[in-house]
Amino acid sequence: MAPIQNARVLFNSVPKGYPIPGETTLYDTTQTIDLDTVPLNGGFLVKTLMLSVDPYFRGKMRSSEKKSYTAGFEIGSPLDGFGVGVVLRSETHKVQVGNYIYGPTMLHQEYTVFPELGLMQVIEKHANLPWSAYLGPAGMPGQTAYVGWREYSNAKAGEVVFVTSGAGGVGAMVIQLAKQAGLKVIASAGSEDKVKFMQSIGADVAFNYKTTDTRAVLEKEGPIDIFWDNVGGATLDAAFEFAAFNGRFLECGSISGYNTGEEAIKNFHLIIGKCLHVHGILVLPLLPKYYADFYANIPAKLASGEIKYAEEITKGLDKVGDVILAVQKGTNKAKAVVVVAEEAE
Amino acid sequence: MAPIQNARVLFNSVPKGYPIPGETTLYDTTQTIDLDTVPLNGGFLVKTLMLSVDPYFRGKMRSSEKKSYTAGFEIGSPLDGFGVGVVLRSETHKVQVGNYIYGPTMLHQEYTVFPELGLMQVIEKHANLPWSAYLGPAGMPGQTAYVGWREYSNAKAGEVVFVTSGAGGVGAMVIQLAKQAGLKVIASAGSEDKVKFMQSIGADVAFNYKTTDTRAVLEKEGPIDIFWDNVGGATLDAAFEFAAFNGRFLECGSISGYNTGEEAIKNFHLIIGKCLHVHGILVLPLLPKYYADFYANIPAKLASGEIKYAEEITKGLDKVGDVILAVQKGTNKAKAVVVVAEEAE
Repeated sequence: MAPIQNARVLFNSVPKGYPIPGETTLYDTTQTIDLDTVPLNGGFLVKTLMLSVDPYFRGKMRSSEKKSYTAGFEIGSPLDGFGVGVVLRSETHKVQVGNYIYGPTMLHQEYTVFPELGLMQVIEKHANLPWSAYLGPAGMPGQTAYVGWREYSNAKAGEVVFVTSGAGGVGAMVIQLAKQAGLKVIASAGSEDKVKFMQSIGADVAFNYKTTDTRAVLEKEGPIDIFWDNVGGATLDAAFEFAAFNGRFLECGSISGYNTGEEAIKNFHLIIGKCLHVHGILVLPLLPKYYADFYANIPAKLASGEIKYAEEITKGLDKVGDVILAVQKGTNKAKAVVVVAEEAE
Repeated sequence: MAPIQNARVLFNSVPKGYPIPGETTLYDTTQTIDLDTVPLNGGFLVKTLMLSVDPYFRGKMRSSEKKSYTAGFEIGSPLDGFGVGVVLRSETHKVQVGNYIYGPTMLHQEYTVFPELGLMQVIEKHANLPWSAYLGPAGMPGQTAYVGWREYSNAKAGEVVFVTSGAGGVGAMVIQLAKQAGLKVIASAGSEDKVKFMQSIGADVAFNYKTTDTRAVLEKEGPIDIFWDNVGGATLDAAFEFAAFNGRFLECGSISGYNTGEEAIKNFHLIIGKCLHVHGILVLPLLPKYYADFYANIPAKLASGEIKYAEEITKGLDKVGDVILAVQKGTNKAKAVVVVAEEAE
């Protein structure tokens, strides 16, 4: 077989504000690959099926000297993130041809030779779930919600939780875990469609933070025992103001500041008098503790419809830059997934 | 016996900045009391021996509609706080003449009729400790350090802790608990005398934050696994910057903002990527869990010198206003105690 195109999405420049498609990232079609002859050197060759686009991408778009909890993207190299692919060839017994692999280090390109599994894993799909679910509620975002909630919420029936970005991959799962635990759920998002979706998955009080004052909602519906924070900034200050004594704050994201600079927090000192507990949440350190439990429970509940989810699927690797921008601006409709190739192709 | 003077310290006006003696508080000698005939109505009469002056007083100097974790002082009424007194008369079996009582609701006046014990308790003194120690390391400040450290530090030998206000009643106890647990202790305070005291009780790195840059110290001696925060503001931001992964922040005070307004916190968002755990600490909710343990251990260790402490004793109820100001400005030399009357008088 002759070499074929191996299109990629490259990190091109560090953005000042929002990431601009074609400037921050470039869709590049100059590379080719011969699927039959490309050397594997003991590794395996994967065809990328779909990629997840997540809020944390913005943090990886930084100059290489800035440290953070994730490695940054490298200028001139493909982006990487969670994704699903199918194995075309393998020289390792750990991975068989036809296996599906999933994990956080999928490159944003059509075909990739992996020297080893590393953080990727071979994954089995539930018969009644699409692969895309493994990039959302059955994957990293769902796991983030699950492990954070289990580890730190200390939730009790009758308590009140406030969930931000409640229509996103993480927030939607938090809403449903909270309802299952018997809590009253206040949830916010940035469009009327997202409000409707949050209501459909059980939020007791769902509101559009762009048209409704968060402080007014919390004053009326709070105080809040648990705050699931995906946004930071003024919303976080409002949560401190209307937090109950002994409240738990699960700090998962701060997207209000990712593109425009982090806002300083004015109400931090209220932590003392209210005896609040604030926990930073990354999924990977907590995942081993809850891994078996998560996969034993969540995919089946998603397949049966007991847990609901929404996703916005975009076709084409060339659309990654647009999807990244939409996720940062919140103009995406639901958890963002980019389909790179159909399985049958 | 004829009526005698019952001097008081009254809350007179809400301060805008630092509390001004004679304006924020007034020393008042207009009241008298007849110790033999004052009606007890089933309560008991106490002669005030000594009073504690603490940083949290500033938070109680607010207009009455502002809510907080402690009741505010009332304009025209005596201040209240931790103190020790001796019982002169009693009409309740719970309190005997000659008992000493201790607790958070001692009025700042020479004699007080208590209708009931309430939050006060009858207390036994260790033979080799003065009563003043029960307002410092053997009382509320020591208990705050003890319960906070036990509940939330999750300390492991070899870790690094940063303690602010390390020469104060709380901070000095934290330094010694941390050394006992095998940690490296970085400690800050606002004078060279306080630095020497912190060194004498075991701090490995003690510095004067007024003359040494906190960030530079933490960059060199950190990262810090535990931060004991008595000050808030820019110091807290520095602690976030140089916190280790999985660090614990014990939020006990925020005195940098009590008199000049709370500073907004710029580095809060670092909580997420470092998976930090931040806990607000009040002593009273945690005290029942550690009460027996505290009194079984700490007074004896203080009496033997195994745990050291410093105090600055000021004589005279009329000096309370000055001492309050010194504590807020940090110009006091050590844990502040005001002696109102000698026992033998």
